[in-house]
Amino acid sequence: MSKTVLVPVADGTEELEAVAVIDVLRRAEAHVTVGSVAGPQIVASRGTKIIADALISQCAERAFDLIVLPGGMPGSEYLRDCPQLIDMLREQKRQTRLYGAICAAPAVVLAHHGLLGDLAATCHPAFSSRIENKTRMDSRVVVDGNCITSRGAGTAVEFALNLVALLYGREKALAVASPMLARFDFAF
Amino acid sequence: MSKTVLVPVADGTEELEAVAVIDVLRRAEAHVTVGSVAGPQIVASRGTKIIADALISQCAERAFDLIVLPGGMPGSEYLRDCPQLIDMLREQKRQTRLYGAICAAPAVVLAHHGLLGDLAATCHPAFSSRIENKTRMDSRVVVDGNCITSRGAGTAVEFALNLVALLYGREKALAVASPMLARFDFAF
Repeated sequence: MSKTVLVPVADGTEELEAVAVIDVLRRAEAHVTVGSVAGPQIVASRGTKIIADALISQCAERAFDLIVLPGGMPGSEYLRDCPQLIDMLREQKRQTRLYGAICAAPAVVLAHHGLLGDLAATCHPAFSSRIENKTRMDSRVVVDGNCITSRGAGTAVEFALNLVALLYGREKALAVASPMLARFDFAF
Repeated sequence: MSKTVLVPVADGTEELEAVAVIDVLRRAEAHVTVGSVAGPQIVASRGTKIIADALISQCAERAFDLIVLPGGMPGSEYLRDCPQLIDMLREQKRQTRLYGAICAAPAVVLAHHGLLGDLAATCHPAFSSRIENKTRMDSRVVVDGNCITSRGAGTAVEFALNLVALLYGREKALAVASPMLARFDFAF
C-alpha cells in the first residue's frame, strides 16, 4: 500500500535535504507531495530552482502518513511562519502519525512550536542550543515516538532511509539502499 | 578564485546526484551552471521538477574548470545524445580540464563516446559490463588523470566532496564537509 508523504518547501530550503528525502521515499514507492509554503516555484538555499507539486493550502485538508521538514535558512523560518503547516504538524503529533525534521528545522520549527515536547531529538550543531529536554545531539538520526530528526545535508540520505524503514519496515529500507550504494545505520 | 562548473541535466536525470553535486560545489563557492540539454525545465528521474540556469547551447562556447554528469535513466541517454555536450566533453579531455560522471553516466555517456580511454573508472553496478579497460568497480569514487567517476545516488555527496578537493584542495573539502555532517574518504 502506497504511503503518503508531504515535504514542505520554501525559498531558502536546503535542496539536498529536500531532494534526498523526496528521491529516497519515491524509490520506496511512497506517494510524495512537494508542498510549497510560497508560490509554485522556490529558490533553494544554494540556488536550485524547484517547482513544487502543490501549494500547502492545497494539502491542508489531507492526512499524510508522514510530514518531513527539510532544513536550510531562511527556509526553516518560512516553514515556521506558515500557520497551515503548523496546524498540520500539531494534528500529526496529536494523531500519532509520523513527522520528521532535519538540520535547522527540528529547532527552528518543531522546538519553536512545542512539537518536540520531551522527545529525544537532534538537529544541526549550530542550532542545538535551541533544543531542550532529553536531546541526543551526537546521533545522526534520532527516532522517538512518532518524531524523527536528523542533523544536516550529509545525513539526509541516512535520515531518508530511516523514514523508509519506519513507513515500510527494515527490509524495504535495505532494498532501497542497495542499488543507491548508500551506507546507513538504523536509528531504532 | 571561483572555479566554473557545468552540471548538464535532462529529463530523467537522477535528481539526488545532480543536486548533491550542485549544492556541495556551491558550498565551496564554485560558480555552478545547471545546463539543460532539453528545455529550461526538466523532470528528473523521481519526478522532481528543476529549472535549469541555462540551455547547453548557451554554454557551448565557454570553458568550464569542471563538467560533471549526473546519472539516472533515461537522463544519461539524453546527455549521450547531445552533440554540443559531447563536443564540450571531448574538448575537456583534450585540454586536460576536469570531467566527471556518476551512476549510469560513466558507461552510457563517457565509455560510449570513448571518453574513458584506458583510464580507471567506476559506475553503477548495473552498467559495469559496459566499461572496459582498467576499471576499479568496487571503489565509491575513482580519480584517474582528469577524470572522476562514482557509483550512485548514495555515493553522490562523497563524489561531490572529492570534486571540491580536486578543484580547491583537501582542506576546502574538509571545511565544506564539516557543517554538512558528511562522512567521506578521499579517493586520491
